[in-house]
Amino acid sequence: MRNIKFVVSYDGTEFRGWQTQPGLRTVQETLEQAVQAVTGEERIRCNASGRTDSGVHAVGQAVNFYTTSMLAPETLLRAVNAHLPPDTIVREAGEVPQSFDANRDALRKLYRYVIHDGDVPDIFMRRYAHHVKWRLDADAMRRAIRPLLGRHDFRSFETDWPNRQTSIRTITHASVNRVGDCLWIDVEADGFLYNMVRAIAGTLINIGRGYWPEEQMVAILNAEDRIVAGPTVPPEGLFLMRVAYAE
Amino acid sequence: MRNIKFVVSYDGTEFRGWQTQPGLRTVQETLEQAVQAVTGEERIRCNASGRTDSGVHAVGQAVNFYTTSMLAPETLLRAVNAHLPPDTIVREAGEVPQSFDANRDALRKLYRYVIHDGDVPDIFMRRYAHHVKWRLDADAMRRAIRPLLGRHDFRSFETDWPNRQTSIRTITHASVNRVGDCLWIDVEADGFLYNMVRAIAGTLINIGRGYWPEEQMVAILNAEDRIVAGPTVPPEGLFLMRVAYAE
Repeated sequence: MRNIKFVVSYDGTEFRGWQTQPGLRTVQETLEQAVQAVTGEERIRCNASGRTDSGVHAVGQAVNFYTTSMLAPETLLRAVNAHLPPDTIVREAGEVPQSFDANRDALRKLYRYVIHDGDVPDIFMRRYAHHVKWRLDADAMRRAIRPLLGRHDFRSFETDWPNRQTSIRTITHASVNRVGDCLWIDVEADGFLYNMVRAIAGTLINIGRGYWPEEQMVAILNAEDRIVAGPTVPPEGLFLMRVAYAE
Repeated sequence: MRNIKFVVSYDGTEFRGWQTQPGLRTVQETLEQAVQAVTGEERIRCNASGRTDSGVHAVGQAVNFYTTSMLAPETLLRAVNAHLPPDTIVREAGEVPQSFDANRDALRKLYRYVIHDGDVPDIFMRRYAHHVKWRLDADAMRRAIRPLLGRHDFRSFETDWPNRQTSIRTITHASVNRVGDCLWIDVEADGFLYNMVRAIAGTLINIGRGYWPEEQMVAILNAEDRIVAGPTVPPEGLFLMRVAYAE
């Protein structure tokens, strides 16, 4: 059996998330069916770096699977893409060591949350950005996100805590950039808690609109209590941008 | 009766074009129903600057309609938007003279055709750009579009000629710009023939990929024969950007 790694993009709008669920359209099942159609194998299991929720997009989700197929990775990529629907595409393919596990071996993931704060909602962005009706102060948001950098207990930004062994994670990059009427909130970490980026984005929106002072981020982080942070904002603004591995 | 002008954006993907057709989802009917819901009138007729075809988008379609409603235009805009689906929005509203006719009074329209020529299709652009598999030479396309400027018989770029009284139009602006992996073909004219921008774009793609020399554009224009121009490219890349009126 060969171990193949794919880097996959998908538009999450019409998926009920990554993970297979009976009767629902999921990315995992869509991808597995396309690989099965190409290799003729009965049961391919695609193992992703992590699940993404219903409506969340991926620019660069990483996936591995084992196959008996001897097709070259580039050939496999083209053949699988020919079987995928228009909202899913394999961007890269390669053979990896037998031991490679896209979930366990992920060192860091980068998520981007896209907010549109133009006067009028941009209908061409509606699937790919969260529209807010306030003009946001990107500088205040940029200063507010800084205290999140480094190793902290992030349970203030975790839905349904305790649902993990630990809420301690390390954020290695955190930035806010304005691109016209859009804001990009980028957060890279060694792992993410459930709804963590969406809770951070909701908190930053409250700061950017002037509802909370920017200093409040430190108090929220230190409170270790989800109730004090901002709302979990909707999935359409969230993109899994890339997953980093060793080597 | 007051005469109201709207500037409307719509994502054409899930519409069968502008014009009402029984049993099909069209922008005209969608907009008229929203206005009727707000004003309580039984028969509002929205008159657009021109029809757009199935799948074609509008950033700034211009529309006028007569209403007995005394709502201020800004109030009307907000109320109508509350009744519109997520792929349609009114961006501007104003009262115009009784005689104003969005179709007859349009002086110029600007269309943009968006092409994506990245190695791998960008699934997030799939509804809003035409993907081609060749890397296009934007400079050659920019030189090739120039001879179209001015007053010409454009029947080489008209589907189903003769279906108009005249195929003579004046192009007032024509440009090709590269924005990353996208090309924007902008054409402004005093009027457009059926599928004219899509035939110009198909011709420019043949030039940009090196299939035809850039000098061929002049021969195509002069031939006055649709058979010699490039293919009519698909609607998802086409946007009606804005409509200009006097004053």
